Amino acid sequence: MSDFSSLVLPHIAKLHAYTPGLQPAEPGWVKLNTNECPYGPSPRVAEAILRELADEGEALRLYPNPKSAPLRQLVARVHGHGLREENVLIGNGSDDVLNLIVRAFGGPSAATGFTFPSYSLYPVLVAIQDGATEVVAFDRSMKLPVEKIAASGARAFFLTSPNAPTGVAFSNAEIEAVLARFSGLLVLDEAYAPFARENAVALLARHPNLVITRTLSKAHALAGIRVGYALAHAGVIDLLDRVRDSYNVNRLSQAGAVAALGDPGYYDAIIGKIIETRDYWLGEWAGRRGWFTYDSQTNFIFTEPKNARGESGPAVARELYEFLLSRKILVRYFPSHALTASFLRISVGADDEMFAVDEAIEAWLKTAP
Amino acid sequence: MSDFSSLVLPHIAKLHAYTPGLQPAEPGWVKLNTNECPYGPSPRVAEAILRELADEGEALRLYPNPKSAPLRQLVARVHGHGLREENVLIGNGSDDVLNLIVRAFGGPSAATGFTFPSYSLYPVLVAIQDGATEVVAFDRSMKLPVEKIAASGARAFFLTSPNAPTGVAFSNAEIEAVLARFSGLLVLDEAYAPFARENAVALLARHPNLVITRTLSKAHALAGIRVGYALAHAGVIDLLDRVRDSYNVNRLSQAGAVAALGDPGYYDAIIGKIIETRDYWLGEWAGRRGWFTYDSQTNFIFTEPKNARGESGPAVARELYEFLLSRKILVRYFPSHALTASFLRISVGADDEMFAVDEAIEAWLKTAP
Repeated sequence: MSDFSSLVLPHIAKLHAYTPGLQPAEPGWVKLNTNECPYGPSPRVAEAILRELADEGEALRLYPNPKSAPLRQLVARVHGHGLREENVLIGNGSDDVLNLIVRAFGGPSAATGFTFPSYSLYPVLVAIQDGATEVVAFDRSMKLPVEKIAASGARAFFLTSPNAPTGVAFSNAEIEAVLARFSGLLVLDEAYAPFARENAVALLARHPNLVITRTLSKAHALAGIRVGYALAHAGVIDLLDRVRDSYNVNRLSQAGAVAALGDPGYYDAIIGKIIETRDYWLGEWAGRRGWFTYDSQTNFIFTEPKNARGESGPAVARELYEFLLSRKILVRYFPSHALTASFLRISVGADDEMFAVDEAIEAWLKTAP
Repeated sequence: MSDFSSLVLPHIAKLHAYTPGLQPAEPGWVKLNTNECPYGPSPRVAEAILRELADEGEALRLYPNPKSAPLRQLVARVHGHGLREENVLIGNGSDDVLNLIVRAFGGPSAATGFTFPSYSLYPVLVAIQDGATEVVAFDRSMKLPVEKIAASGARAFFLTSPNAPTGVAFSNAEIEAVLARFSGLLVLDEAYAPFARENAVALLARHPNLVITRTLSKAHALAGIRVGYALAHAGVIDLLDRVRDSYNVNRLSQAGAVAALGDPGYYDAIIGKIIETRDYWLGEWAGRRGWFTYDSQTNFIFTEPKNARGESGPAVARELYEFLLSRKILVRYFPSHALTASFLRISVGADDEMFAVDEAIEAWLKTAP
């Protein structure tokens, strides 16, 4: 027997796995495809991990704190607004947290909602649970379809704000307009909120059906150690905690995350620099090059390239994507839908990386026949 | 709204979470309750993690290798028997791997099987998926109920060998007897196999429905970094990989695990020492004290204490458990079932820890009125 179709669940046999962005193993790439931070983490992170490694790593023989208790306490304190340890759940990356939410609230007869476009992991997590979905589509304006979300009937609805891959943020007023009309759990995925003008943490106190998820992978330059978290009513956290693996976050990641959140000054500086870089290049591409580009409140820019003849569209976006790839510049291209197929998503890198992209664009424009 | 019962799935609302062993945060405990290794990991682990932390942790800004590819290749090579990268899946601890198996193969109409007693996480993982279960009970002999497993009708059946909490191992001949009669997926949880006289890796080549899971938390003294893996037919690995989170294992854990598996000489020595310590104390408690004790092929001893009057039973086991606890000696007690309630599970510690346990037992025996 090497055909497992009689044993595996039918929906798993049909499943399409999530496709992460390329993570080239070899050096030499300008890597602007997975929204990593172009700057390293606070030096306190490595120091804290070194402390945890004392005596030749002796402490690694012991299981980690099963509740990530010190980290939970610190997350609550950092966010303020009356949050306490019991309002925080720590995940092995925020993907772990999203997964727990889908498993606790979604299933074949309990639809999970999300917008399109948004983070393409959501439908995969729902499909793994053979769950029903309610997809609310944006139109090209990318304005929040408040009434459609309210009418979706979803048990849990994932709303990414600021959104990916567009970069567009929704205001707290818009989010409260959803909360006023939606009776399910609203999961606000704030992976990119540190780059935005506003976040919704203050709304938690008056909306027990609001869950906010965060990650240290983007603004905190810690994609490599996998730490994310949820902020929510203690009743929601308790439910998610039953589904969570007891030892989901290892010792070194707990120590590193505590150190990172203890150094807000460092992160304010690099986040400020990334916002400045983003706004400069957004101005250049939207302004100087005249490319349609969504207002970004994230660490990436979603832009619709025009070729030398002034044409845009899927063929143009793909051509530029492949031209950049040939120069070892990785950006992200989402060809499968009309709302995204004419665009490229370019993570905000360090200055030299952004100039390299712009020079490559210039070279591409000159290749026109 | 702060009652989420109308939103959460009904089976999650009723769920009892897994109870991990106590992980005291303060020092001063003799900690023999979660089968951690009493010796630290290979010094190469900390060295490898330090290399990954070069330049103040700069590399941590980048996502880890999404397939843990170098680690998968090394695991395949270490086990030999023709295994290749596509026969290996890496998990965030072997608990992650067990979870993926339950999610891919088990559900309300696809029963997951396991024995009782065995690892108490299995029923929790199945309950999270609202899955049907088939429980095959041991009797006090702890002999493998081959026919009952074969007749269970489970899609996937978890068999822990050596078993926990008993320590009893099943021979490859017994496992092949199951495989000859069982048409589902047999998941052999070999968390403790490095302490056993035999393991089943050689059986993989001729049994495509066999999955073996392993962990680095026990014999490799790396509970703190959360790495485990599955070995199986490439078709099974491919199915599990669809359910796996793309970045389930962080950069530091991947680097540390590669270093550990690259230092077999170090681990042969500490495993040899643990086996020697185990056999000595098993002899002492079974022999000198005359306590019924299962033959252990693990790093723990499952023994049925007798008090000063020669009585055994649940009240006696609990009394000794609490006496040890009062002396800051942590062992594990499983009171909820007749087959385990008269026993204590004592992890094999360093010599001074084992002598401390034995001295405390002596003191307890003298407390008799």
